[in-house]
Amino acid sequence: MARGFTTSLLFFLAVSIALPSFCPGCQGEGGLAWSSEPGLNSPGWTVPVAPGGPFSRIYLPQNAPIGADTGFGASRWLQMNANAWHNAAISIPEKAPAWFRDGVFWRFAEARAWPLERRHPFGTKIYGETEAGAVQTQFLGNALGVTVVGGTVYAESDDMFAYALNARTGQLIWRTSPVGNHLMGNPLVDGEIVYLAAGGVGFNFANVVAYSRKGTAVRGMDVSYNGIYALNRKTGRLLWHTGSLGEAMPTPAIHGRMLYFATGSGSVHALDKMTGRPLWTVRLGGNDNMSSPAYSHGRLYLAMASPPRLFCLDAGTGRTLWTGTIPGAANTGMGDVSPAVGDGVVVMDTVTRPKTVHGQATLEPVVRGFDAGTGRPLWTVSTGRGPKPPAFKGGVPLIHGKTVYVGSPVTGRYDALDLHTGRRLWSWHRTSSSRSAPTYDDGRLYIAGGDSLYRLDPKTGRETGHIRIGGRMGIVSPTIVGGTAYLANSYDWIVAVPLSSFGPER
Amino acid sequence: MARGFTTSLLFFLAVSIALPSFCPGCQGEGGLAWSSEPGLNSPGWTVPVAPGGPFSRIYLPQNAPIGADTGFGASRWLQMNANAWHNAAISIPEKAPAWFRDGVFWRFAEARAWPLERRHPFGTKIYGETEAGAVQTQFLGNALGVTVVGGTVYAESDDMFAYALNARTGQLIWRTSPVGNHLMGNPLVDGEIVYLAAGGVGFNFANVVAYSRKGTAVRGMDVSYNGIYALNRKTGRLLWHTGSLGEAMPTPAIHGRMLYFATGSGSVHALDKMTGRPLWTVRLGGNDNMSSPAYSHGRLYLAMASPPRLFCLDAGTGRTLWTGTIPGAANTGMGDVSPAVGDGVVVMDTVTRPKTVHGQATLEPVVRGFDAGTGRPLWTVSTGRGPKPPAFKGGVPLIHGKTVYVGSPVTGRYDALDLHTGRRLWSWHRTSSSRSAPTYDDGRLYIAGGDSLYRLDPKTGRETGHIRIGGRMGIVSPTIVGGTAYLANSYDWIVAVPLSSFGPER
Repeated sequence: MARGFTTSLLFFLAVSIALPSFCPGCQGEGGLAWSSEPGLNSPGWTVPVAPGGPFSRIYLPQNAPIGADTGFGASRWLQMNANAWHNAAISIPEKAPAWFRDGVFWRFAEARAWPLERRHPFGTKIYGETEAGAVQTQFLGNALGVTVVGGTVYAESDDMFAYALNARTGQLIWRTSPVGNHLMGNPLVDGEIVYLAAGGVGFNFANVVAYSRKGTAVRGMDVSYNGIYALNRKTGRLLWHTGSLGEAMPTPAIHGRMLYFATGSGSVHALDKMTGRPLWTVRLGGNDNMSSPAYSHGRLYLAMASPPRLFCLDAGTGRTLWTGTIPGAANTGMGDVSPAVGDGVVVMDTVTRPKTVHGQATLEPVVRGFDAGTGRPLWTVSTGRGPKPPAFKGGVPLIHGKTVYVGSPVTGRYDALDLHTGRRLWSWHRTSSSRSAPTYDDGRLYIAGGDSLYRLDPKTGRETGHIRIGGRMGIVSPTIVGGTAYLANSYDWIVAVPLSSFGPER
Repeated sequence: MARGFTTSLLFFLAVSIALPSFCPGCQGEGGLAWSSEPGLNSPGWTVPVAPGGPFSRIYLPQNAPIGADTGFGASRWLQMNANAWHNAAISIPEKAPAWFRDGVFWRFAEARAWPLERRHPFGTKIYGETEAGAVQTQFLGNALGVTVVGGTVYAESDDMFAYALNARTGQLIWRTSPVGNHLMGNPLVDGEIVYLAAGGVGFNFANVVAYSRKGTAVRGMDVSYNGIYALNRKTGRLLWHTGSLGEAMPTPAIHGRMLYFATGSGSVHALDKMTGRPLWTVRLGGNDNMSSPAYSHGRLYLAMASPPRLFCLDAGTGRTLWTGTIPGAANTGMGDVSPAVGDGVVVMDTVTRPKTVHGQATLEPVVRGFDAGTGRPLWTVSTGRGPKPPAFKGGVPLIHGKTVYVGSPVTGRYDALDLHTGRRLWSWHRTSSSRSAPTYDDGRLYIAGGDSLYRLDPKTGRETGHIRIGGRMGIVSPTIVGGTAYLANSYDWIVAVPLSSFGPER
């Protein structure tokens, strides 16, 4: 026994010496690994994908947009829902092909597509209707909406693929799975590069034990390959990747030369957007689940859960300028929601104050406005208690003009609030799980919820029409370009519908 | 506020009424959902896979074995490593084609294949060498070894696909991904059906919180689609599936009309093996991570972690006949290891007694023999303290004759112990992570470890040769049929090597 123990210790020391970089992120420095393997830019195996296998890249140049069609959509897409106020509406030029304005209709079945007409998500009998919807969003379908740049629709799916489709025809330009992991964001597009963020939602057993001891743990560690994957925009070919210890579920943000992303290890990383080289890392603590950083005027706004805090960082250095809280913030809510920033106000919300009512868990979402400069709370509004929702626990706010529009997955209600006072202007209640930011376009408000796309009068909240898409939409903001709304679906579809389908205003 | 609250409560009640089956397993009854969707046996979409997409089934009948080749391998495969003593060696008939005896060589790259010659697993820079190996096994490559029945090699991979290959040529017969989840077992083959078990290793946030409060939680719940998938053996087409709340990472076991599987919700389920209809469920508590039930003489033997216990169940009813423990059992070890049963003895092992040595976490694996009839402990042997390994924390024992062969991922050592006294006969130390059961064939012992296949003299532990395969082998027992060893790899490959490559005994 004594000899066995000595041998083990020697082996143990040998392992320690051989592995100086073991679990680097556990040391608190965020653990970024840049670029990775030799030959990364060679045409061979750069990530674990067998050439010719089901995960190998497909590139169909014949389906790419041509001519004037390449001017359709944004010229670049630098953060979640296109901007800090979260309005995924892109105007079209005065002189444009007729289809820009008339709109198009198509449906594209992604890899794990589940028929849109099915009444229940996959796994309903096991997980129940509500939970199965969340599971389908997180593990098979699309979590957020799509990106439309240069006549092309870019989408990330939890089916482990990213897609580029012709925005006019819906035909596949490329499909790639550069990593065996879920892709939950809006793809960012800047210059010739498409950026994906990869991160699994789970915790491994070591982190479960860590959480039970310390009340905090790294999300996504050792349950997936997390980080940023940069692709050639035209072909989908992998250019570089930068791995991170915690999950990178939130959509990154780009400004100048820097790409920012936040993770399940409570870190924010800045990379050189051209090469992926790490520039700085700050460790804020907690988990960023889906709170995509909003970039505005030299600052980054994002939130962490466990502990729940809103951060305003200097985008140049990562230095914390101020932090904010929402009283009673609970569960993952604070780290789920990407704050909206506009007109000098930051709007954030989270579920608060868990309480058991008649034997069922309930929560109360609260929306708070902060002064963007100082972090001073301006107003605080409860949107009503209700049953605890599965997964993403909050509503992504949209700021348009002097109004904030925000949903609640707890009550299913959308509220319009005065941006500067929090005063409720109207409420609308039609869908059951209201998580996504509405889209404001041409004097109308569009909301993707449940199986439909709704049109509202933004002044009164009156519903003026809806289009049934089928399936279920998770945290999907409609991306509206000219006459078309582009939608992603938990049932793993990308859909284009013409706004003219709504018919005349009622 | 008061009105909002009433509305929420009404909504809440409506949800409760509309969803009587919400989270059925949370009620403690195991939560099985049989068969699932309408049209399951129709040729259309039966699970979320887009026809023609990357996950759609491939079937190449021209590659199926013909003639005498169909007699190669087992006639059926009813539990992990073929039998309760965990010896994946299949004899060949006296009169057989020459290749049965001479052996074959081929390599098959699965979907996420990573070049075998690469020195480090994917993600090494982020996770460190040791952890990255475990992550690659759990999320991209093969965890266990392969099944060889009727001239065909069947494999499950964490790349989310199952494969059927021609055992002689290595050519693909079918490939299918009936569920977006990891497949970690040996496929079972019985009659015209192949059975897969699906389960993700992670915990969702609700379960992290549950664990921190109660010290126990359901593994795999709401982080994947868990359960059993039954395929047509010839074509890979899905026949039925039965979902479970917790992960189904362990390999099931079949006896008579029943298929048994154990899950991360601490349950054991018996299904009708032909239809998937649930027959009974027992809830034992804890998590079964990878402890595949061993069937022997009307009994099932398996273990749970958190709390750590070995169970002997009546295979007809699921009634617990006896339970056993190993003093000091820690972490997931007890739920990782499938017990071996032979000659009236059950052999189980686990890591025990966590201790920090020089600032590093260490563990001490302990092997224990139990009387199979009564559960009385017969002997207890420590195999030496060493650094805490990632993931699977134990060694799968092999029983052959009056000897048990068992590895330790803590020290890297394999020990041969007397089955009835636990007396150590010899030790061998060559690989670093020794988790898999060796295979005993024709007076020789074969061990897959690290990047190589080793041959030992089972009487003395003397190494008599090795073949370098490349990549890394996780919990892979070599499946030996006639002159060929079949191996799966964490780098997502299936490899056939002729035993003649070892050269003459040295």
